[in-house]
Amino acid sequence: MTDYAFGIDLGGTTVKIGLFSAAGELVYKHEIPTRKEDGGKHILPDIAEAVRADMEAYEITPKHLKGIGLDVPGPVLDDTIVNRCVNLGWGRINVVEELTELTGIRNIRVANDANVAALGEMWKGGGRGHDDLVMVTLGTGVGGGIIVRGKILGGSNGAGGEIGHMLVNDSETVLCGCGKKGHLEQYTSATGIARLAREALEKTDRPSALREYDKLSARKVFDQAKAGDELALEIVDQVCRILGHALAVIACVVDPEVIVIGGGVSKAGTILTETTARYFREAAFHACENTEFALAELGNDAGMYGAVKMVL
Amino acid sequence: MTDYAFGIDLGGTTVKIGLFSAAGELVYKHEIPTRKEDGGKHILPDIAEAVRADMEAYEITPKHLKGIGLDVPGPVLDDTIVNRCVNLGWGRINVVEELTELTGIRNIRVANDANVAALGEMWKGGGRGHDDLVMVTLGTGVGGGIIVRGKILGGSNGAGGEIGHMLVNDSETVLCGCGKKGHLEQYTSATGIARLAREALEKTDRPSALREYDKLSARKVFDQAKAGDELALEIVDQVCRILGHALAVIACVVDPEVIVIGGGVSKAGTILTETTARYFREAAFHACENTEFALAELGNDAGMYGAVKMVL
Repeated sequence: MTDYAFGIDLGGTTVKIGLFSAAGELVYKHEIPTRKEDGGKHILPDIAEAVRADMEAYEITPKHLKGIGLDVPGPVLDDTIVNRCVNLGWGRINVVEELTELTGIRNIRVANDANVAALGEMWKGGGRGHDDLVMVTLGTGVGGGIIVRGKILGGSNGAGGEIGHMLVNDSETVLCGCGKKGHLEQYTSATGIARLAREALEKTDRPSALREYDKLSARKVFDQAKAGDELALEIVDQVCRILGHALAVIACVVDPEVIVIGGGVSKAGTILTETTARYFREAAFHACENTEFALAELGNDAGMYGAVKMVL
Repeated sequence: MTDYAFGIDLGGTTVKIGLFSAAGELVYKHEIPTRKEDGGKHILPDIAEAVRADMEAYEITPKHLKGIGLDVPGPVLDDTIVNRCVNLGWGRINVVEELTELTGIRNIRVANDANVAALGEMWKGGGRGHDDLVMVTLGTGVGGGIIVRGKILGGSNGAGGEIGHMLVNDSETVLCGCGKKGHLEQYTSATGIARLAREALEKTDRPSALREYDKLSARKVFDQAKAGDELALEIVDQVCRILGHALAVIACVVDPEVIVIGGGVSKAGTILTETTARYFREAAFHACENTEFALAELGNDAGMYGAVKMVL
């Protein structure tokens, strides 16, 4: 009989639940809402109930369930404890203990969502075939995940791979969402790129197709850059320079085989990876100059894949 | 009968050989010269001969030798292969294979010296009691070693922890020893600190005790800062700001429990760690703000301790 495992991506809005064969094939996926009310106390029971229902539907006995991997949008200590997760309304929770009690399943692992997405991309996505990987996720914010010898680098405070908050500009005056200043996220997130575009348009009166829009976005900047708009190209260049140099610093620290770029901004495609790689090589320590660049491939499923990988 | 192991620190001038009990106590240490002539081909046979002689003197049979740990001043791949080591005259050498053939000993591990020193400091030095550690060595250059969950982070090109070559200043015009520009080593190594001091003295005609010296050194800068010289204090502040901010970036990547500062410059003591820690906290991601700072304690013995730890 086949063995199964769950890979569950617990987000601020929905919980994505993936049932996988032990061979790593996605058998069935569905979503349930993340009920954040009452300090998020319904979330784990809801997940346990969904797991129970899926096991019943697929006639899976506990003996044939290899485990549950779960990611959460917050810092995780010792693959076990979530240490305050604002997005879910949680304080300090031992997720493994609670979920074991609720499900009776013993092999449960939990980790931070950005780290788990990196693991998923290593296993089945843009980082396939590699063991040492850095993933940077350019979305509303900037997240990161680092894999060393096939394992998540979680960090001693659950802050491993928090590269969105690395200092890249000493002289910034505007605050980052975290309360400090000059962080990577302020320049290379979707919101950061839109901000750089607004600033660029204000600084000059050079013509640009970007002036046509009421509301600028990272996507519009990349689209117009691809269409040849000079100012848009300069903004893309500025963003990729900051990102490439930051990644060169990261490579001096963990020296990965491949850097995977994901998140909404990565839909820009090769203009993003190629320009970033060029600035990366300019700044990288010579031994790391040939580090590969790849685009993420799993999109919103990366979390489920990475989560199940932790228990397979 | 007691079991033993060797921890060997292979430097550009001497080879430090430590014989340890399996319990990790240093039993005997001595040095032999590093014979770099003829492409360094005598180095491993010399080490094998020293090991043989020590085993004879201490009546250690191969059965009672738990292994040999060795560090080298160059990049190492897969704990085995040295990939070009200019300081020793070596090209690509499978050190484990050659040393096994020469000694008949099976359990041999090799790693980069800066990484091994970090392991030594974690085990018996300034990082005792910790599992996740970053060590930065401020000497003629700046080296680094990163330990994650008790293991060296060697990197996919052997460049893990090469933090001396992380970009910290985009607008630098002077070249780093590695051929690129704006690297941490250019500001926080002993030579870098002396350079900053020379520049500071040239930029102003404010009085300073540092003007008395024909030749400036990092040591003189720190000594005068401790004596209250204002300009020297400003230079120390500048150095610690660059170092503290760089370490805050590193903490966003690997999130260690402790940061250990070693190398000749670290003899400056708490003025160095405390000022650096202050700038670190200013820039660090909030989850990492309380990362501990410590001074290295093992000095030149860190390599032997770290090397033997790899095989114990």
